[in-house]
Amino acid sequence: MSKNLTTRSEDYSKWYNELVVKADLAENSGVRGCMVIKPYGYAIWEKMQAELDRMFKETGHQNAYFPLFVPKSMFEAEEKNAEGFAKECAIVTHYRLKNDPDKPGKLMVDPNAKLEEELIVRPTSEAIIWSTYKGWVQSYRDLPLLINQWANVVRWEMRTRLFLRTAEFLWQEGHTAHATRSEAIEESEKMMNVYAEFAENFMAIPVIKGLKTETERFAGAEETYCIEALMQDGKALQAGTSHFLGQNFAKAFDVKFANAEGKQEYVWGTSWGVSTRLMGALVMTHSDDKGLVLPPNLAPIQVVIVPIHKSDEQLAEITTEVNVLVSELKKLHVSVKYDDRTTQKPGFKFAEWELKGVPIRIAVGPKDLENGTFEVARRDTLTKEVKPKNGIATYISDLLEEIQADLFNKALNYRDTHITEVNSFEEFKAVLNDKGGFVSAHWDGTAATEEKIKDLTKATIRCIPLDGVEEAGSCILTGNSSVRRVLFAKAY
Amino acid sequence: MSKNLTTRSEDYSKWYNELVVKADLAENSGVRGCMVIKPYGYAIWEKMQAELDRMFKETGHQNAYFPLFVPKSMFEAEEKNAEGFAKECAIVTHYRLKNDPDKPGKLMVDPNAKLEEELIVRPTSEAIIWSTYKGWVQSYRDLPLLINQWANVVRWEMRTRLFLRTAEFLWQEGHTAHATRSEAIEESEKMMNVYAEFAENFMAIPVIKGLKTETERFAGAEETYCIEALMQDGKALQAGTSHFLGQNFAKAFDVKFANAEGKQEYVWGTSWGVSTRLMGALVMTHSDDKGLVLPPNLAPIQVVIVPIHKSDEQLAEITTEVNVLVSELKKLHVSVKYDDRTTQKPGFKFAEWELKGVPIRIAVGPKDLENGTFEVARRDTLTKEVKPKNGIATYISDLLEEIQADLFNKALNYRDTHITEVNSFEEFKAVLNDKGGFVSAHWDGTAATEEKIKDLTKATIRCIPLDGVEEAGSCILTGNSSVRRVLFAKAY
Repeated sequence: MSKNLTTRSEDYSKWYNELVVKADLAENSGVRGCMVIKPYGYAIWEKMQAELDRMFKETGHQNAYFPLFVPKSMFEAEEKNAEGFAKECAIVTHYRLKNDPDKPGKLMVDPNAKLEEELIVRPTSEAIIWSTYKGWVQSYRDLPLLINQWANVVRWEMRTRLFLRTAEFLWQEGHTAHATRSEAIEESEKMMNVYAEFAENFMAIPVIKGLKTETERFAGAEETYCIEALMQDGKALQAGTSHFLGQNFAKAFDVKFANAEGKQEYVWGTSWGVSTRLMGALVMTHSDDKGLVLPPNLAPIQVVIVPIHKSDEQLAEITTEVNVLVSELKKLHVSVKYDDRTTQKPGFKFAEWELKGVPIRIAVGPKDLENGTFEVARRDTLTKEVKPKNGIATYISDLLEEIQADLFNKALNYRDTHITEVNSFEEFKAVLNDKGGFVSAHWDGTAATEEKIKDLTKATIRCIPLDGVEEAGSCILTGNSSVRRVLFAKAY
Repeated sequence: MSKNLTTRSEDYSKWYNELVVKADLAENSGVRGCMVIKPYGYAIWEKMQAELDRMFKETGHQNAYFPLFVPKSMFEAEEKNAEGFAKECAIVTHYRLKNDPDKPGKLMVDPNAKLEEELIVRPTSEAIIWSTYKGWVQSYRDLPLLINQWANVVRWEMRTRLFLRTAEFLWQEGHTAHATRSEAIEESEKMMNVYAEFAENFMAIPVIKGLKTETERFAGAEETYCIEALMQDGKALQAGTSHFLGQNFAKAFDVKFANAEGKQEYVWGTSWGVSTRLMGALVMTHSDDKGLVLPPNLAPIQVVIVPIHKSDEQLAEITTEVNVLVSELKKLHVSVKYDDRTTQKPGFKFAEWELKGVPIRIAVGPKDLENGTFEVARRDTLTKEVKPKNGIATYISDLLEEIQADLFNKALNYRDTHITEVNSFEEFKAVLNDKGGFVSAHWDGTAATEEKIKDLTKATIRCIPLDGVEEAGSCILTGNSSVRRVLFAKAY
C-alpha cells in the first residue's frame, strides 16, 4: 500500500508511475505500449467525458462514429498537405488467422488472406472524416458541420508511460466544417476556451492559452491553439489542442460547397481533441506523497465514511447514525461510500482512501456517538476536525466546493510563481535548471533558433500566450529583435 | 426524400438498406465493411448506451478499458478451449509507413518495421481480459469482478449490412469472474434478464429468453443465454447473448484464487454483450413504408413543432405560442424541436420528420392561433387530431407513454401471432415458407439433425425457450423422441 510509495522529491517520475498503478488507475497490459484502464481510473475518465460531452453539446456539437481503419491511399491524399505527419502506426495487412499446419496448437497468419490495400489503425481521423464530409457537403445550407467523436486511436510510440504516452489511447476528436474562414477561426478559439474552462473549473488545473509555433503546430493546421498546464516538477504538459485547418483538408479531399451565389468554394475546417493524457495531468497536478488528491468534481467517491468500533453492537449503532448521514448527503448529490468492511482495520482503510484521493474522510467512533459528532478529514490538507452532527451534510457539501476551489488556487499559485521572465540565455538556462516552470523570454521568431534552444536545453516553446502584450526586446539566443515574449519549458 | 423509399412488400431488404441511409442513421464508408454512424443514428445509440450503462451500474458493474490488440499467442491459449472460434480478423503485422522511394507522393509499409508477434484487432476481449484478471485475482476476497467495457471490435465479415453485420462495430462486453459456479450462472441469467428488460421496456421489442444449442453456442461457453426478437419480415434476430463460461477461460489463462480454506480453485466466468446490431433490430421492428418509427424512449427528438404561416407576422405570432409550449414540454423532460426553418416548406418538413421517425409532430397555423389549438400527429399510427392548447403539454407527455406502450404491444401481437407449433416436417417447411416467424417444434437434440434441418430449410434453432414446458413428442425430422419444443426460424 501507500507505505511504499516513492516520494516526489526522491524520484518524481517513479512516484508517478507507482501512484498510477497503486491507486488502481491503470496498469501496463500484455500488449506492448497499451494500457488497461482499471475501474477506478475509468470512473474518473467517465466523469471527464460526461462533463466535456455536456459542454460540446451545449456549444452545438453532435457525436458520430467513423471507422477505426484508414486505407493507405487516404493517408497519401492527406500527406500531400501534411508532410512530416507521424508515420509510426499500426498497419493491418491480413485478415485471417489459421492453424499452423507445422505446429499443433499454434496459429499463423494466412498468407492467402492479404489485403489489397493496407489499412492503418487511425492515429487521428482527419483523413477518414474529411473523405466522408465530401459526401455530406454540397451547399452552404449543409454547413456548418459540428461533429465530435469519442474513440480510441493508436500511435506506435517507442517509449510509453501510463496515460502520458501510450500506443493506444482514448480521446475525443472534434471535426468541424464551415463556410468561412472567420467562422472556422472562431470555432477553434471557442473550443480552446471550452477546454480551458473544463481544465480550470472541473479539473482544478490552471492553464495558459496560446498559439503553437510553426514547429510545434499540427502538420495539417494553419494555426494550433493550445492550453498548457504546469506539473509539480516544473515541467509543462500540453492539455488540449484546437486546430484551425484552413482549407487544407478540404483541398486534400476535395470538399467544396456552393455558396449563396452558387459559386463553388472549399470548406474551412477545424479539429480539436483531448485525451486520456488528461488523467496524467490530473495526477501530477494535485497528488502528494501519500497518494492521489482528486478534485471533488472528478472524484468517483467524494466522501468515505469509516466506522471505528470494538464490538458488533457499536458497529450497529454507528451504522444507524451513518445511514442517516448517507441519505442526507445523497440528497445533496454528494457521492458517498460507507466502508463497513469487517475484513480490514480502520488504519488500513484510512491509508487506502488516502492513496485513492477521496476528498473527504469521515470517521465515527463510540466517542462521536456519545458526543453527537463526526471526525472530518480533508485529503488535500491532511487536516482533521470534529464537527457536530447537526448540519453536517450541508457542511460537507460546502467543504467539497471549498476543496475544489482550494486545489485550483494552490495549483494556480504554484504555476504563477513558476513563470519567470528572463532576458539572457544564461538566466534562461539557470532558471530551467534550478527552478523549472515556464520561462518567459524573447525569441527571434525563427524555427532555427527554436531548434537550437531545444538542442541546448531540452526546452521547447510551449506557446505564444494569447494574453501576451507587445514588448520590444531581443532574442535570448541570437539577440535579434523580437516583439513579444513566448513561454518556454521542458515538457511532457 | 421518403417519396422514393422502397416499400417493405416490394423488397424488405432493400427497404431496410435505403431507410438506414435516408433517415441519416448510418452509411457505408470508404473502408470495406466499416460504417459511418451519422449523428442522428449515433444519438439513438447514445440513448441505448446511457440506459444500458445505468442498468449495468445498478446491478453492481463498473466500466474499464482493455487494449484494442490481442497478441497472437494469447489467442492460441484461448483457442485450446475454444476450437472453431472465428479466425477472420484484422491482423496488424507492421508498425511504420514510409515514403515509397520509387513513387513520389506514395506511401509504403516499411518492411523493416515488422512486429515480432502479430497483433489481432480484438474480435471480442475474453483473451486480453482474462490474461489481465490473472493479475487481479489471488483470493476469494478479490471476487467477484464485475466489469463492463464499451468498445469497438472487428470481425472480418465478407458480406456486410449496415448495423446488422459490419466488419467494425460498437458494443459493450461484460466480463465477470466469480468464486462459485452457481454465482456465475446467476450472473449470466441476471444479465440476460437485464437485456430482455431493456429490449422490451426501452426499445419496445418483445423478446424470447432462451438457451442456445451447442451448435449455436459461443465456442468458449458452457451455456449461452440469449434474447431473440422477430422482425417484420418473419426473420428472427439475436438481440443479445450472455455466456456462462464455466472455468474455461480461467483454465486457459490460469486464473486461480485461494478460497476461504486457503485452497486454490479456478475462477468461474461469464461474458455478455449487445452491439450496434440493436440499431438494426430497432429499425426492422417498428418502422414502416414512410420511414423510421422510433419508440419515444429512444427518439433523439420526441416532438417536432412545425409552423404553418403565410407571412412573417404570422410566424412571429406562432413562435410566441410555440415558445410557451416548448418551455412547458421541457419542464416535463420532453425533448422537443421547433423547426422554424424558412428554407423549407411545411410539406417537406412533415415528410422529413416522418422519415426520421419523430414520435409526435405538432403543427400550428393561423387557424390554430384563432381557435387556441394545436394539430397533433402520431408517427406510429399516422393519425391526427386537433387539441386545445390548455393542458397540451401534459397531454403530449402522456401520449408519448401511450405510444411507447402501443409500439410494444403491436410488436408483441405480431410476434405472438408468428409463433407456430408444428408436428411434422411438411408443416414445418410450409410455415417457414408461407408465414415465417418462429416455428415451435420437437427436435431430437442432436447437432446432426439441427444441421440437416438448416441445410434443407435455412432455419436454425434460435433457442430452447426458458419458459418452455416438458412435453413428450417426436422430432420433426427423425421422429426420434423429444421432451420439449425448441424455436426454429430463419434469422439475421
